[in-house]
Amino acid sequence: MHIDVLTLFPEMFQGVFHSSILQRAHERDAFSYNLVNFRDYTTNRHSKVDDYPYGGGAGMVLTPQPIFDAVEDITTKGSSKPRVILMCPQGEPYNQKKAEELAEEDHLVFICGHYEGFDERIREHVVTDEISIGDYVLTGGELGAMVVMDSVIRLLPDALGNKDSAPQDSFSTGLLEHPHYTRPADFRGMKVPDVLLSGDHAKINSWRKQQALKRTFERRKELLKGKELTEDEAKFIKQLQNEEKD
Amino acid sequence: MHIDVLTLFPEMFQGVFHSSILQRAHERDAFSYNLVNFRDYTTNRHSKVDDYPYGGGAGMVLTPQPIFDAVEDITTKGSSKPRVILMCPQGEPYNQKKAEELAEEDHLVFICGHYEGFDERIREHVVTDEISIGDYVLTGGELGAMVVMDSVIRLLPDALGNKDSAPQDSFSTGLLEHPHYTRPADFRGMKVPDVLLSGDHAKINSWRKQQALKRTFERRKELLKGKELTEDEAKFIKQLQNEEKD
Repeated sequence: MHIDVLTLFPEMFQGVFHSSILQRAHERDAFSYNLVNFRDYTTNRHSKVDDYPYGGGAGMVLTPQPIFDAVEDITTKGSSKPRVILMCPQGEPYNQKKAEELAEEDHLVFICGHYEGFDERIREHVVTDEISIGDYVLTGGELGAMVVMDSVIRLLPDALGNKDSAPQDSFSTGLLEHPHYTRPADFRGMKVPDVLLSGDHAKINSWRKQQALKRTFERRKELLKGKELTEDEAKFIKQLQNEEKD
Repeated sequence: MHIDVLTLFPEMFQGVFHSSILQRAHERDAFSYNLVNFRDYTTNRHSKVDDYPYGGGAGMVLTPQPIFDAVEDITTKGSSKPRVILMCPQGEPYNQKKAEELAEEDHLVFICGHYEGFDERIREHVVTDEISIGDYVLTGGELGAMVVMDSVIRLLPDALGNKDSAPQDSFSTGLLEHPHYTRPADFRGMKVPDVLLSGDHAKINSWRKQQALKRTFERRKELLKGKELTEDEAKFIKQLQNEEKD
């Protein structure tokens, strides 16, 4: 996979691309990337990338020209037709399914704005996907692009050392994860549940499954809607519902 | 506000804290921060921060000792009782309301894990808030912490240059933003809507309000539920519903 990032703040990405898993995935050739400062594509004398909004109002708006030209340059160079992703609060809410979909692509282009809005013609004619990572306001699209890249890159073949680690994650089962414990068994009087020390794997599995259901029921009931449950699981949920009523 | 970040990868934060708005907010003393590598708090000979999970299974689990000791050290030094925030997929879904709540605090501590899970005793005895920035899996908690920090810091007094820019954002009205346009009025044959060039501010305001409603209706219907609408707005939504049926 190749990733182009259009941003006015390419230095924001250095820490993330040069750390930990993303750096190792890059060294393993799981992906390549290019940071494009779209100010370099401006044709006006002062390298201005934004201008006042038509119709008045606060804030500046990113002009179409530099972003159109930068994306066209990238697309002409590359062999594939990329997904061009605009990070913005108006976008489609991001989730793991979208991460899996994007991980199938050969070429992603991210467009990140900062404080400003985007001229609507960029959305209409350049962008293929508008993505929002959540219902909160950030100072720019850069952090959102990092979040999407991180979640996509870790799904690529060869990105993670241990190939088995991706599918066992939260969300892949549709439930929140059960609690984890490690040594010491007694830390300042706080003890690990006996069942985990029992060596009885059937009992441990059943405890973990119940804890995952319980945590999901307590914190994110909406994730249980429409989920297919075994008879035992349904019975356990019923029990939790009854306890809640008491 | 003071922010402490517990992480095994402090270098990941450099790009974000040294760029753009967060750097300027820091220079304006809107907040101070400290990156704490909790590996420095380990008491074992090999500075190990994780261990195998009790009960078996893939993946490593962060041990309680270094994180308990790091948080206690931070808390003893500071005068206030901090909010201690664990970034994890099992956390409370993050939103703008939570950002506003955290922006009222004097001291935030973020705990970021990487690949590993956390020993449950950390959640139970150290952490005051568990936060998830969205339903997708990331390689670590660092990006999530950056997202939360960015959204909180921009709400602090003196963080943004223009004090008026925060409340007019997306989500503060409960609707997605209307389209923006800037010069040129004709870009490669793509034109700015006439109304925005009319100079008629009442008409422009009404167009923008309708466009915001329309965009929200088309993309995020659930945001309209429970929202109080004026008579005109309700009529407009009714019209959109009828068009949808046709």
